Amino acid sequence: MARKIALVGIGKIARDQHVPALAASADWELAATVSRSGSVDGIDAYTDFAEMLAARPDIDTVSLCMPPVPRYAYAEAALQAGRHVMLEKPPGATLAEVHTLQAMAAGKGLTLFATWHSRMAHAVAPAKAWLADKTVTRAHITWREDVRKWHPGQDWVFEPGGMGVFDPGINALSILTEILPAPVHLTSATLTFPANRQTPIAADLAFSGGVTAEFDWRQTGPQTWNIEVDTNAGPLALRMGGNRLELGGVEVAGENSIMGEYPALYARMAQLVADGTSDVDLSPMVHVADALTLGRRLFTDPFDF
Amino acid sequence: MARKIALVGIGKIARDQHVPALAASADWELAATVSRSGSVDGIDAYTDFAEMLAARPDIDTVSLCMPPVPRYAYAEAALQAGRHVMLEKPPGATLAEVHTLQAMAAGKGLTLFATWHSRMAHAVAPAKAWLADKTVTRAHITWREDVRKWHPGQDWVFEPGGMGVFDPGINALSILTEILPAPVHLTSATLTFPANRQTPIAADLAFSGGVTAEFDWRQTGPQTWNIEVDTNAGPLALRMGGNRLELGGVEVAGENSIMGEYPALYARMAQLVADGTSDVDLSPMVHVADALTLGRRLFTDPFDF
Repeated sequence: MARKIALVGIGKIARDQHVPALAASADWELAATVSRSGSVDGIDAYTDFAEMLAARPDIDTVSLCMPPVPRYAYAEAALQAGRHVMLEKPPGATLAEVHTLQAMAAGKGLTLFATWHSRMAHAVAPAKAWLADKTVTRAHITWREDVRKWHPGQDWVFEPGGMGVFDPGINALSILTEILPAPVHLTSATLTFPANRQTPIAADLAFSGGVTAEFDWRQTGPQTWNIEVDTNAGPLALRMGGNRLELGGVEVAGENSIMGEYPALYARMAQLVADGTSDVDLSPMVHVADALTLGRRLFTDPFDF
Repeated sequence: MARKIALVGIGKIARDQHVPALAASADWELAATVSRSGSVDGIDAYTDFAEMLAARPDIDTVSLCMPPVPRYAYAEAALQAGRHVMLEKPPGATLAEVHTLQAMAAGKGLTLFATWHSRMAHAVAPAKAWLADKTVTRAHITWREDVRKWHPGQDWVFEPGGMGVFDPGINALSILTEILPAPVHLTSATLTFPANRQTPIAADLAFSGGVTAEFDWRQTGPQTWNIEVDTNAGPLALRMGGNRLELGGVEVAGENSIMGEYPALYARMAQLVADGTSDVDLSPMVHVADALTLGRRLFTDPFDF
């Protein structure tokens, strides 16, 4: 029987990904939404989270899709009310708040799942399996997309805590940290800020082990989400955000669609709740915090949507 | 019998604190120094770290005092060469690199000690003991000092990774995270950068639970290192960087000197090596990374030494 879930924060990512994934899931029944601005046809809609938690004791799991800065208060309230919690990426505005949520969930025997949707892309698991016994000699991430296309008018991405180009870049880092056979750490970074904004619109990162990354949010035309890895057994490339895999320049797996990522996240959440366990890996967020700690700041033209 | 130790990075903090602490210690014998620019009278002096590691197998412990950005390479080389490692604060330029060192030390059965000297201040342990069963209703850190006095000409503090005012501020955060009975997380911050510098010269932080902090590196005249805590049992104040304690406005413990901090660190290191354990608490550094991730950036007058 499907387990009831509430979806909180009905914005673009909820409509584009969470609602279709839940509609197609045999594990879950979307039983309520909570949002000041959005709702889903035919689903019980609340504007106040505390009211929903009180009115619907039959809903034992909540999925939080709002931006990272307001998310902590909802996650804390949900755990205090005995609900399992699934967090969109990044799992919080700070590392310390996620540590607190981890301790709270563990103390109450509840599931906390810090999701990284790009890790569920079709070709990530085969890439990880292939790399497991290889030596990585070099890797380069190219993550170039158009913020106007993916976050139209969403000024919060340029406000403190909105992460700027690290909002997509953390997807690349979530794949990198999943597939590399040994961890790396940042050694230097340059961060390019629009003169009128609080978060970077582009970033170049250098890690130990010959790993580099370029993130840019100003790419019009074709979008690029590639991770190219050189190994002692030849090159591997992940393209289309982890959805297509090449080994030695020959495509061996993949689809162009990212529509499988969120169904896989919800299937994983169902398994975590059934097992009574949590899944919180902060390593992609640690790399972003490290970049914002260690990075050299450059300034460029103002940016407006 | 005293255990032999090498001191690496003979700059201001080594001369001011590490060398006197080791000279007074019954646990340790300063057996070598490694530095391109400094040495200690009467002590075997090397300019190359690999050469010292190869030449002095009798030295099983190294204490690393150079700035955080170059420190990782030394720590990694020391652990690879089977030496125990003591790290000045902050323990690294990135969180990820310290995670890597932790895993490396654990894998080799070596001691890694990420020191926080301010936690060894005279009044920190009694403050922690008093707060353990109290409810904290509010706390405020005031950490105002003169960078020209404490870091004369040290431009690295304003370079990427130098941490700026968080270099002293992390001392306050190391005390805060030690004494509070429950963890807090950053909720907002403002960071003030000199127009010509890469790291902030002042910062205002707000945490959960009514905890706030103001750090400023432009304080001439009297210097201020206070932590004031309101509780359900009245106020507690730590002054002089954790060296003096007031309860209910009455001083109950303390000295004005910080000269006890480094001897206590080296005594703790001796105990950790004897016990075969490590001590790496990254929570002060997590709060700094969170502030640099979530903080709003302001710009002020250029700063020059």
